[in-house]
Amino acid sequence: MSSATLQPTTLDRTVIEQIVRQIVLAQNGSAKNGSPAKAYEPKLMVSISPRHCHLTDEHVETLFGPGAKLNPEKNLYQDGFYAAAETVAVVGPRRRMLPTVRVLGPTRSFSQVELAFTDSISLGIDAPVRHSGNIKGTPGCVLVGPKGVVELQEGVIRAARHVHMSHRDADYFGVKNGDYMKLRIESPFCTLVMEDLLVRADATSKLEVHIDTDEGNACFLDAATKVELLKQDAGCGCKH
Amino acid sequence: MSSATLQPTTLDRTVIEQIVRQIVLAQNGSAKNGSPAKAYEPKLMVSISPRHCHLTDEHVETLFGPGAKLNPEKNLYQDGFYAAAETVAVVGPRRRMLPTVRVLGPTRSFSQVELAFTDSISLGIDAPVRHSGNIKGTPGCVLVGPKGVVELQEGVIRAARHVHMSHRDADYFGVKNGDYMKLRIESPFCTLVMEDLLVRADATSKLEVHIDTDEGNACFLDAATKVELLKQDAGCGCKH
Repeated sequence: MSSATLQPTTLDRTVIEQIVRQIVLAQNGSAKNGSPAKAYEPKLMVSISPRHCHLTDEHVETLFGPGAKLNPEKNLYQDGFYAAAETVAVVGPRRRMLPTVRVLGPTRSFSQVELAFTDSISLGIDAPVRHSGNIKGTPGCVLVGPKGVVELQEGVIRAARHVHMSHRDADYFGVKNGDYMKLRIESPFCTLVMEDLLVRADATSKLEVHIDTDEGNACFLDAATKVELLKQDAGCGCKH
Repeated sequence: MSSATLQPTTLDRTVIEQIVRQIVLAQNGSAKNGSPAKAYEPKLMVSISPRHCHLTDEHVETLFGPGAKLNPEKNLYQDGFYAAAETVAVVGPRRRMLPTVRVLGPTRSFSQVELAFTDSISLGIDAPVRHSGNIKGTPGCVLVGPKGVVELQEGVIRAARHVHMSHRDADYFGVKNGDYMKLRIESPFCTLVMEDLLVRADATSKLEVHIDTDEGNACFLDAATKVELLKQDAGCGCKH
């Protein structure tokens, strides 16, 4: 079990809400895979991903003008990724709109809109819970930028919760890429255990859980007192 | 353990969102307190309470005019309680506003506004998680009705999750009034276990869990395939 004490951020919530809200947790537990505490203690970051979109190079040019490139505004926790200065409006099937949806970079080979369920209700789109990239058969939408419009035939999802990690972290937790874990967030009167946390392990990623705003708000993440990342088939932290 | 199969409602979501979203679950499990399956199998209702407020008689008259009474529009699941036709605007400290907050009846001896955390961010109010009635020291707000305005000095909370039940239901689950339970909601890619579910047992209440919109959205309640109401100190449904 890896338990942790919260170090709250000092940023203003309204600013963070537009980009990303995250907490860094000081690990002070030991691995729960039967081995004794190891010297290596990964630092666990829990990040709330607000609604955002990924774009292709072609769509960036359509939305922001010929030759346009994304302008990095804030680096994300994972090296090489950033929140761009650019935002788009997302328009749903009943002409409801989310006026300011952040674009994340770098560009990808397909465009994709990631919403919390609350956002999808506002927009009138029935966005299914999918892992990033798995967008076949999902609803589309219209993206509106300052210089043009893109109609996506598919790609609107509620991103399924997941945890990025290095292979070393995976060894630490006794899991491998593609496994599921769970995250227990202890918060006054609203403790949650989130199951179905997909492990995305590779050579270079830092240990970081991605949840959406609904999930972060449901457990009042900012007020959390303890977070545990557990194997899916491990105990949930409850007494038994 | 009591497990259940979902019977989705057929109401339009935008309508339900304004009043209440709920699912009725056909019980098909057995109690987990060590005794064999009992003949009595309570029906479990899980209700999402959207933002709403409770008012005193005096505040109803201030907001809706001298002599005004609440007009029941939709009966709630618990006998004697209803969503009123009346709504108020809730104004926060930075003049942000939630324009349509439903009033629930009957009236109470104190006025109280119950928001999801997402609502409280919109409103710019730092609403603490509290159990209903425990409002000492909580933030206030301004309520605006068609005939007047009320300034609440306190009473804005995020209502803590809880479960109403009869003493008979409490016996069935092996709990008593004031205990805590947990609710596991199995939903594709977003299963949640909500701990800290306060038991409110009395002679007449029906078995009903109250969660807020953030909690309901976090687990995509409408798509849930199984719900289990468990003792806080029982296993969480995970394999171990």
